[in-house]
Amino acid sequence: MKKESAIVLLSGGQDSTTALFWAKKIFKKVIAISFDYGQKHKIELNAAKKIAKIAKVKHIIIELKEFKKINESALIKRKMSITKKHKFDKNLPATFVPGRNIIFLTVAASFAWVKRIKNLVIGVSQVDYSGYPDCRKDFIKAIEKSLELGLDYKIKIYTPLIDKKKKDIVLLAKNLGILNLMKDTYTCYKGGKKPCGKCPACKLRQKGFKEAGILDPLYFKK
Amino acid sequence: MKKESAIVLLSGGQDSTTALFWAKKIFKKVIAISFDYGQKHKIELNAAKKIAKIAKVKHIIIELKEFKKINESALIKRKMSITKKHKFDKNLPATFVPGRNIIFLTVAASFAWVKRIKNLVIGVSQVDYSGYPDCRKDFIKAIEKSLELGLDYKIKIYTPLIDKKKKDIVLLAKNLGILNLMKDTYTCYKGGKKPCGKCPACKLRQKGFKEAGILDPLYFKK
Repeated sequence: MKKESAIVLLSGGQDSTTALFWAKKIFKKVIAISFDYGQKHKIELNAAKKIAKIAKVKHIIIELKEFKKINESALIKRKMSITKKHKFDKNLPATFVPGRNIIFLTVAASFAWVKRIKNLVIGVSQVDYSGYPDCRKDFIKAIEKSLELGLDYKIKIYTPLIDKKKKDIVLLAKNLGILNLMKDTYTCYKGGKKPCGKCPACKLRQKGFKEAGILDPLYFKK
Repeated sequence: MKKESAIVLLSGGQDSTTALFWAKKIFKKVIAISFDYGQKHKIELNAAKKIAKIAKVKHIIIELKEFKKINESALIKRKMSITKKHKFDKNLPATFVPGRNIIFLTVAASFAWVKRIKNLVIGVSQVDYSGYPDCRKDFIKAIEKSLELGLDYKIKIYTPLIDKKKKDIVLLAKNLGILNLMKDTYTCYKGGKKPCGKCPACKLRQKGFKEAGILDPLYFKK
């Protein structure tokens, strides 16, 4: 595998950062790709930039601003509450951005096609997660097939965290020697300079560090 | 079906225009969606606007300009020849835009999710076509499944032209009473005010009209 290249989807959060460093061990060359899709918490993109720099990987940011024109989610619309259920589907959280990972993977795959790269890496998990359908294994398998057929090009999507609990993702970060880097990742949905500690994303992160018996360096950041 | 709504992908060409009027007969309400993805022939988008106006349907244009930042195709890059094979895959024409229909369908599906619409219509054909893999039936089936799993929402993708030869698409337009409207559609890859008559898209169109025994009103436009 060390001969091959991979493109890693990097949001700037804990999971995608862990996936990035996992990919760096597996692949010879890694390129990180981030998306500006009108998310409220721009601070997340700045975290992605910083992490890509520390990881010494090429980083491209794709602007999908008009995506917000058609989309409705508490991660995009300021007035929507982040803790409630989605107004259009009560089985999903308000923070669900419909189509997000589908579009991100498709754009990343188009880029991979142009660069003749055969591997994508995405840090989704279907265990301790927010309940987004586009983080599940069956979706990943389906989109992998769609991309192969639509591009006439076999792309493999790696999901190193898919079966991992948040605790195990923290332990993977420890094994990769990047625990200290977690202070530079951004997880909170609120978009403030400091994490709110109360939103679903902050709580999920706290659960992982607590169960792993490790203090989150994020809360000791100067 | 007449109770339901549908979103139609409208490029402004012959096929998508025919698909739009097919959808108008089948569905109660129709919304047209077009994409500005950095294509050379902006004239195509103007055709889409005009056709949506004549069809009296709501029309939205989504700007995916940054798509061209990562993409390479003769429909986007001015210097690439439109008649040659693609430099990255000699089995595909230079005009192949990798991921185009995958992204268009995904963005349209996200919009459908927000609008609670369950039907998408796309005017692709796998018979007389340019050889793009994302126009084939197996791809459409796969992306339909991916969208269902990724959105947790069942969306049906209608492809009224998928098994039709160009000749039959012309005859369908005749049956729908929109032959005269074909003068306002735009097919040519060159992007000039008048069709070049020589590029693969112009030739495919000419073949259809010739085989149908109908004169293309495009060439009698004042």
